[in-house]
Amino acid sequence: MRSITSIGTSTQICAIIGNPVQHSLSPAIHNAAFQELDLDFVYVAHRVEDVKNAIAGMRALENFRAMSVTIPHKVEVMKYLDSVNKVDREIGAINTVINDLGTLRGMGTDGPGALNAILSAGINMDKINVLMLGSGGAARMIAFTLVHQTGLGHLAILDIDKAMLDALAGDLILQGEIPIHANLLNDNTLAENMETADLIIHCTPMGMHPRQDVSLIAPELFRQEQTVFDIVYTPMETKLLKDAKSKGLQVISGVEMFINQAVLQFEQFTGKTAPVDVMRRVVMEHLKS
Amino acid sequence: MRSITSIGTSTQICAIIGNPVQHSLSPAIHNAAFQELDLDFVYVAHRVEDVKNAIAGMRALENFRAMSVTIPHKVEVMKYLDSVNKVDREIGAINTVINDLGTLRGMGTDGPGALNAILSAGINMDKINVLMLGSGGAARMIAFTLVHQTGLGHLAILDIDKAMLDALAGDLILQGEIPIHANLLNDNTLAENMETADLIIHCTPMGMHPRQDVSLIAPELFRQEQTVFDIVYTPMETKLLKDAKSKGLQVISGVEMFINQAVLQFEQFTGKTAPVDVMRRVVMEHLKS
Repeated sequence: MRSITSIGTSTQICAIIGNPVQHSLSPAIHNAAFQELDLDFVYVAHRVEDVKNAIAGMRALENFRAMSVTIPHKVEVMKYLDSVNKVDREIGAINTVINDLGTLRGMGTDGPGALNAILSAGINMDKINVLMLGSGGAARMIAFTLVHQTGLGHLAILDIDKAMLDALAGDLILQGEIPIHANLLNDNTLAENMETADLIIHCTPMGMHPRQDVSLIAPELFRQEQTVFDIVYTPMETKLLKDAKSKGLQVISGVEMFINQAVLQFEQFTGKTAPVDVMRRVVMEHLKS
Repeated sequence: MRSITSIGTSTQICAIIGNPVQHSLSPAIHNAAFQELDLDFVYVAHRVEDVKNAIAGMRALENFRAMSVTIPHKVEVMKYLDSVNKVDREIGAINTVINDLGTLRGMGTDGPGALNAILSAGINMDKINVLMLGSGGAARMIAFTLVHQTGLGHLAILDIDKAMLDALAGDLILQGEIPIHANLLNDNTLAENMETADLIIHCTPMGMHPRQDVSLIAPELFRQEQTVFDIVYTPMETKLLKDAKSKGLQVISGVEMFINQAVLQFEQFTGKTAPVDVMRRVVMEHLKS
């Protein structure tokens, strides 16, 4: 066990910044992983309003290795960095800042974390039809990642917010050759798209605590060969996933996306392969309690 | 034992900033004390060149509770704080910044730490003659503290640097009623002042590693009723203290000043009584190794 008395002048510091951060699981996950690999790192949490000076401070404080960036700073923080991955600039938001001796790099691990959750579930993305519900920040990160990093066949996006939907669809169409179709979400468009979708990715807040009794998809729309991925993870099993499971569909929980984005962050912080099982155990323990 | 996995969203962070900080004992001392009292704090180290942005960052990062400030930032840092104790403004340097929810207070604990080391040794300061050797930064902090917080009878200061000596003496004379005499350090002035001094405080680098074989005071000048306090603590027992001890004088080691300044910082960080014995043990272990 690494005691706090092992923390010394060489210890690297990582932190989550956001507002609020009080309920973040990130310190628990990353500190458990540092301990597991016996790494000279610690992970703390800073509520931040003034993100510009938080970043200026990180740059000035050697040993401040990395930040996880959460709401509401994922967009603004990009202004203060030295470089941001191309795809993340197009997405327009990041969740990770790495400090290489005063040079700050920004990147997003939410989209890649979602993709890894899908791939770890054994899904072959090649030529499949993907139906995405929602076009907000999380949908945007996942859609960009899928369009750039997979050979999916067709991406349909449904949302009730036409302006946000059209903006996302427009930006995605510029990214490459994959056919994108965006439509207003209603009973007809949903039923129609459910008929052809192989993978459904749910990126709206429906079903999230305290609205855990609702789901966007009526159970009769499910087909057994489909997979449903819900990025909501409070509760760990949403009504959407429960319904899909009861119809015999494969399901992927948002918990896996959450774990996988943390795994990718950890590997950026440390350059080591993350102890995924330890990190999953910490997440599960916290979400159950 | 507090594991690093106990670090979470409520953990308060303290840090030393300076350049270099690689050999600082402060993380070891304070983390051992946090562990002893089971407090939700950690203490890290940041090498800093840009002190302005280090402080701006501290202000922006909630939970960043405190900084110990060391060379070369003890003077410049004062510019960026919301308040500094009056005596520390007159001294012109601080070593501690406390962050009260975004409001930054600066103070010095070196002078009070030295005074506590003297008082803990059982010295009654009332009306005594103090001889101070050296007029640099440490001498200045100690002299101001003694003049403000004790009823000493007379303070003589000797140095070879006339400009620095006169500046310190001039500033001290403005502080109150205590008679101050400053003279160039030479064999005559030293011998003369040694005849009347009750307490000698050595504040020059003479005798510090790697010049541990030298001492400013020839052993024949010692009188048995005197006390010698050497602020140098590498080696732990300087030639000055060894010589004084061999002549039967009471001695106070710079280690005690170092421990006492850390104790005062700890109490500012946490609001708790510091576990002095644990802190002393950590210092001793590190200095012996």
